Amino acid sequence: MTPSKGTLGKDRGYIIAIGGAERKRNNPRILRRFVELCGGEEARISVIPTATESDGTGDRYVRIFRRMKVGDVVCLNIKERDDCYRDDYSSRVEESSGVFLSGGNQLRLSTILGGTPVARAIRRLNADGLHVAGTSAGAAIIPEHMIAGGKSGPTPTRGAVQISPGLGLTNSLIIDQHFRQRDRLGRLLTAVSYNPFLTGVGLDEDTAIFINPKNEFEVVGSRAVTVVDPSELKSSSVSSAKRGQAINLVGVKLHVLASGARYNIDTREVTLPEAGH
Amino acid sequence: MTPSKGTLGKDRGYIIAIGGAERKRNNPRILRRFVELCGGEEARISVIPTATESDGTGDRYVRIFRRMKVGDVVCLNIKERDDCYRDDYSSRVEESSGVFLSGGNQLRLSTILGGTPVARAIRRLNADGLHVAGTSAGAAIIPEHMIAGGKSGPTPTRGAVQISPGLGLTNSLIIDQHFRQRDRLGRLLTAVSYNPFLTGVGLDEDTAIFINPKNEFEVVGSRAVTVVDPSELKSSSVSSAKRGQAINLVGVKLHVLASGARYNIDTREVTLPEAGH
Repeated sequence: MTPSKGTLGKDRGYIIAIGGAERKRNNPRILRRFVELCGGEEARISVIPTATESDGTGDRYVRIFRRMKVGDVVCLNIKERDDCYRDDYSSRVEESSGVFLSGGNQLRLSTILGGTPVARAIRRLNADGLHVAGTSAGAAIIPEHMIAGGKSGPTPTRGAVQISPGLGLTNSLIIDQHFRQRDRLGRLLTAVSYNPFLTGVGLDEDTAIFINPKNEFEVVGSRAVTVVDPSELKSSSVSSAKRGQAINLVGVKLHVLASGARYNIDTREVTLPEAGH
Repeated sequence: MTPSKGTLGKDRGYIIAIGGAERKRNNPRILRRFVELCGGEEARISVIPTATESDGTGDRYVRIFRRMKVGDVVCLNIKERDDCYRDDYSSRVEESSGVFLSGGNQLRLSTILGGTPVARAIRRLNADGLHVAGTSAGAAIIPEHMIAGGKSGPTPTRGAVQISPGLGLTNSLIIDQHFRQRDRLGRLLTAVSYNPFLTGVGLDEDTAIFINPKNEFEVVGSRAVTVVDPSELKSSSVSSAKRGQAINLVGVKLHVLASGARYNIDTREVTLPEAGH
């Protein structure tokens, strides 16, 4: 899906993609920053735990956000496509200042939410100011092109990555998560090799990007974000490689960005924090 | 890539996806209809044979279009990414009334054209009235989500299809080609199962869809087009299926449409030609 067109004069909400395993008790700075964006104690947050089949996840995030003094936080217990047609769920999304997508399996998210009123509401409202955060699988589904699965390892190979249509809040990034913890550079390089209009973003655990309405993101968290920019790619051999074979990629630009660094998705420029900050 | 925003007041050009092996000499009604749309003898057509490594393909289409009395037809001989930065190629696209993408390997098209000035020109100008046709691989790359490859057979299975980012002239369809000739229903069903916001279109050989600016298409050709509409899908088991395992899909709607039938992509309504026509 492509980003929804917003109402004239309204800013898009933030899009927050977290690499999974974010801190939840001791200095949970990513979740706290999300809560502050959504209005702090005035925030109205909806947790969507659809990516996981484990029953406790949604309630766990509800408790975490309550501990941060969010007065109004609920879990939308969406387990199948029919649940996405419940009017009370769509209205709750309408009334929220933030939506949080848990981790699990991103294909559960896309198959259950895809094309339903809840997905349409999230897309439309994000374009008009709703903040949307996702961790792990919840981060993977945010862009139009979603990494659904793939192989570990540093080398790009034909077939190393499976791509599926995602939620489409952004159409210029493709996002991978648990990035260095699960050794996923090869599959991210493979993903951008297929069509070099995409910029690849690999999120380490406990690390997030906060994309502002102007399409600039800031890195927040304890580890780093790897950006793979193929805009000056000279050539990619993916079309002639056989399944499992390594791909030649000539001229990919790579950045590793730690907390505080900023990246402009449109101009592809990096801004580093001043020394000492 | 998502469809480019057009200039206010201008209609999008037609988008024409052909299932491959279209007739070229004896009653070539698909190619003839494309030529008529582009202005007949006044047409200015650019052939892009990038999908194939075979040298004769571009010139062959130039000869075919000349035989149809098109006065101005050239082949843009794009073989690598650097060619897509040639100013004369971008200007030629600017001045064209139609662009024709040949068959071959759709991953060659996406890796060589993706993110370059030629791809941007095609996207921008299609939004403002340029007609864009593609056959076989050239049809596959037209949508935002492109079928890059997959397995034959009627049953959807996890991993039966590889999806990559395409050119993005339309974002609501996913297109397969050589459809019944190569037994591809299973991989098209797999593709829509990943995210049921997509409508699947399977094009038989010598059969095309002509998508008009109002997002309605007409079937033209000697065989048929299979439409897979998952808008009322109850459930899909793709997220829990193992690689190679068959997928449960409950509630997919299917249409088989022959020449003259019309389908509205937005309302999902079919209009059949009157009997006797």
